[in-house]
Amino acid sequence: MKVAVAQLNYTIGAFDANKMKIVEAIEKAKKAGAEVAVFAEYAISGAPAYDLLNKVQFLEMCEEALIEIAAFCDNITVVIGLPIQHSQQTLSAAAIIQNRQVVSFVTKRDLNQRDEAPYLASGDGCDYFFIGGHKVAVVLGKDALNTNYVRATDTVIFLDADRWRRRRIERRYAYMAERGFITERNLVYVNQLGGHTDTIFDGSSAVFNHKGEAIALLDSFKEDFVVVDLDADNKPIEIPYQDKTVNTMSAIKLGLKDFFEKNGFKSACLGLSGGIDSAVVAAIAADVLGPENVRVLLMPSQFSSDHSVDDSVEMAKNLGLKYDIVPITDAYRVVTEAMAPVLGESSEVGVTEENIQSRLRCVMLMALSNKYGDVLLNTTNKSELTLGYSTLYGDSAGVLSILGDVYKRDVYALANLINREREIIPQSIIDKEPSAELRPDQKDTDYMPPYDIVDAIIYRMLEEGQSREEIINAGFDSEVVYKIYGNILRNVQKRHQFCPVLRISYCTFGKDRVMPLTSKYGF
Amino acid sequence: MKVAVAQLNYTIGAFDANKMKIVEAIEKAKKAGAEVAVFAEYAISGAPAYDLLNKVQFLEMCEEALIEIAAFCDNITVVIGLPIQHSQQTLSAAAIIQNRQVVSFVTKRDLNQRDEAPYLASGDGCDYFFIGGHKVAVVLGKDALNTNYVRATDTVIFLDADRWRRRRIERRYAYMAERGFITERNLVYVNQLGGHTDTIFDGSSAVFNHKGEAIALLDSFKEDFVVVDLDADNKPIEIPYQDKTVNTMSAIKLGLKDFFEKNGFKSACLGLSGGIDSAVVAAIAADVLGPENVRVLLMPSQFSSDHSVDDSVEMAKNLGLKYDIVPITDAYRVVTEAMAPVLGESSEVGVTEENIQSRLRCVMLMALSNKYGDVLLNTTNKSELTLGYSTLYGDSAGVLSILGDVYKRDVYALANLINREREIIPQSIIDKEPSAELRPDQKDTDYMPPYDIVDAIIYRMLEEGQSREEIINAGFDSEVVYKIYGNILRNVQKRHQFCPVLRISYCTFGKDRVMPLTSKYGF
Repeated sequence: MKVAVAQLNYTIGAFDANKMKIVEAIEKAKKAGAEVAVFAEYAISGAPAYDLLNKVQFLEMCEEALIEIAAFCDNITVVIGLPIQHSQQTLSAAAIIQNRQVVSFVTKRDLNQRDEAPYLASGDGCDYFFIGGHKVAVVLGKDALNTNYVRATDTVIFLDADRWRRRRIERRYAYMAERGFITERNLVYVNQLGGHTDTIFDGSSAVFNHKGEAIALLDSFKEDFVVVDLDADNKPIEIPYQDKTVNTMSAIKLGLKDFFEKNGFKSACLGLSGGIDSAVVAAIAADVLGPENVRVLLMPSQFSSDHSVDDSVEMAKNLGLKYDIVPITDAYRVVTEAMAPVLGESSEVGVTEENIQSRLRCVMLMALSNKYGDVLLNTTNKSELTLGYSTLYGDSAGVLSILGDVYKRDVYALANLINREREIIPQSIIDKEPSAELRPDQKDTDYMPPYDIVDAIIYRMLEEGQSREEIINAGFDSEVVYKIYGNILRNVQKRHQFCPVLRISYCTFGKDRVMPLTSKYGF
Repeated sequence: MKVAVAQLNYTIGAFDANKMKIVEAIEKAKKAGAEVAVFAEYAISGAPAYDLLNKVQFLEMCEEALIEIAAFCDNITVVIGLPIQHSQQTLSAAAIIQNRQVVSFVTKRDLNQRDEAPYLASGDGCDYFFIGGHKVAVVLGKDALNTNYVRATDTVIFLDADRWRRRRIERRYAYMAERGFITERNLVYVNQLGGHTDTIFDGSSAVFNHKGEAIALLDSFKEDFVVVDLDADNKPIEIPYQDKTVNTMSAIKLGLKDFFEKNGFKSACLGLSGGIDSAVVAAIAADVLGPENVRVLLMPSQFSSDHSVDDSVEMAKNLGLKYDIVPITDAYRVVTEAMAPVLGESSEVGVTEENIQSRLRCVMLMALSNKYGDVLLNTTNKSELTLGYSTLYGDSAGVLSILGDVYKRDVYALANLINREREIIPQSIIDKEPSAELRPDQKDTDYMPPYDIVDAIIYRMLEEGQSREEIINAGFDSEVVYKIYGNILRNVQKRHQFCPVLRISYCTFGKDRVMPLTSKYGF
């Protein structure tokens, strides 16, 4: 049986554009002599569509698009994902198209608890149909794990919309190899591809044979199309090594590119502080959007070091970005003077005064954004977001956070990757000690130990779900552990108002970890 | 059978405090000779606990509290809600305690799709136990609707955590009357009570007899406790009239009070613009928190009318609030001058310049908040939030929005309720035309028809899920309908960063309506 696997980048609700891509792939599959062409879960609608899945008109448009696609399916079977209506509920389904007719729907039983359960109902799970003489199983998502396929089946078509996160590709390959080996069936896996706000689908579709060997691997992070003859003597392919930093960079770039393209945004702006985070964001934005579409502001105060401005200018020049230097010194003076009758006279720089600086920078950046339509990129990293090291309505501002799920230590890894061929980010930015520069001689380590220790503790808390006691027993300093935990709890409210964060880990704030803002639980 | 119904205000994760309240009610029930005491779903944990429900330590603490409570249950049966662990999943359960022992758990089958399905697994549903000679059914939440109770049962104990929204109390009463009548069983209904960030439980627990007549109604929006003898000749109670505005006000006050109390906040601040929204927020805050705990800033610009300042001063004096007048004129001038090289010189006031004003006010208010620990209250109403009539990082700022789910027309109703006994909000604030006062002679009606029309259209779109065509067919102007729809779509990104909103309607943004930020769907 000749199978075409089409891994395409869909847009939510862009029915015509999605349909055109799909039809094009069907034509290509027919030309290649494929007997069946397979598309991802939610191919027709795009994913994740959340409450659009409960809009009748949205579902009707999915159905219309399906019928129009069916018209092209002569001499080929097509298996394609879309949401369907069923007794006033919505199900995730795979439509089976044969002889230009939708002959049946396979529906998903085991929903993703986080992204699907709030919006969808549960369907029947795995079902079977015939292509020529072959009995083929079709499953969606996690149903693939729970199904004992019937004896006569030799191939499983597995439609998925599984978002990328760190180490997900290698885990998925390992899982497919195991499933192929255990069930002794060919496995044709088709995944969604592309960025939708915070959610990034990596693609990485694949065909494994009944011995659990990979016989086709589609690209990660880009569109791809292959035709595989399952009956041929296919040479097994070795699973390539997955570099953590390279994959993270690819995911971020895809997420950023699609956020701009699919929303119709052209240009971005951000503040360059002289620190590593804004440098990495600027470099990635310049690469993805083109330097001509990225505008940066340097907004020094009396507390900024000279090298911060110099480094930022060098960085902007390296990348060819438009940049302006707008000191906030006068605005800071006028605001503190105006507020003096309310706040009292004080020459000390406390949290209030630090935040005024950060918020005035936000006023400037947003003015730029309003005037030129530049989309403000946030520059906060995950370590800062966890600890609450950003000012609400200040440097926590932005439309999209591309580093908000990247630990500080991994931001350095990204910086080194960016600089691999030439020094784009000045080495002095990478080497300098992290500082917010909001008061004289401030350093991040004034409050916390170095980031490699902080990151290790945060990782255990968030991603591994360890309690404070477990972390302390693992050898970390109890005072630091308690301090970090206190910061995590205290900053729930701040994170609530944070912009969407490209999901890089298994535990992105707001999506994978939803905590009550009002709670006395402190363990 | 004598039943005690305990409607208590719990706090999420406050195990000791919750336990003390519960034990106190058990003692009261025992003294009153009750054979059974009934508590709400999630009584021990508080609700909604979201991902805390997946923390092993959180569940263990629930269990410990349960065992400690059981020690007090001599000579009484207690039915009480809590989350429990079951095969590495979490279920919502009712524990049955008899003779100081937890004798069984009834688990919830039909989960709330929005607030529970992402965090919980589904249990077995209704179960039965004996109190003396009586066979009693116990159900949680929606399971009450789906259950055909076994014949020998004469009483159903129904534990719930059903949040308040407009008209919910009357619907719940009507539903219980119907269920009592149809199933011919006594219905003992115990609901959660209290505010948890955005979610407000109204209580309104009740006992209905097997003819569908109310025989006990507990208070709405406050703690209550009753003992009812189901075997006595109880006189039916008439269901009281539910005033929409009075209930909305009660819900907002409870939500605000509990947000401050349960989070340990003392004082609030906000900007008084001279408009109706900030006036209503200030009046409610003064009532709930005490005028000595509310601080307001008046921040006129060159575009502010004199009467705005005069009205606000009068209002602050009426309420006895601390107030300061801090003009933003100088700060506005300095910021626009500093940005002139980047933005270009222009004497016109466009969106950029409007937003700079709004954001500078946010800088001032947040400075106040940082200095004194005052919690900034947001003043946006639902009509503005829907249309995007607020400035991100400007007047959209705040820790809690108490009007963000209240339509503009209902804000007027609240204002009139506040003024019922004496003129607290100056009548000129209520009478003046709505205006943001961000440019000369600006009025909200420059862009849209009056709010009664806008609100009617928004209500149909959001709460009734009507399409544009349906609304136009109902007689509304198609241009306005399209314009509003465009605004709703365009402002998804802005709403994403909005603070928690007290949930007043069936369709609160962000909770009951989650839309993808990246989508081409426009119908």
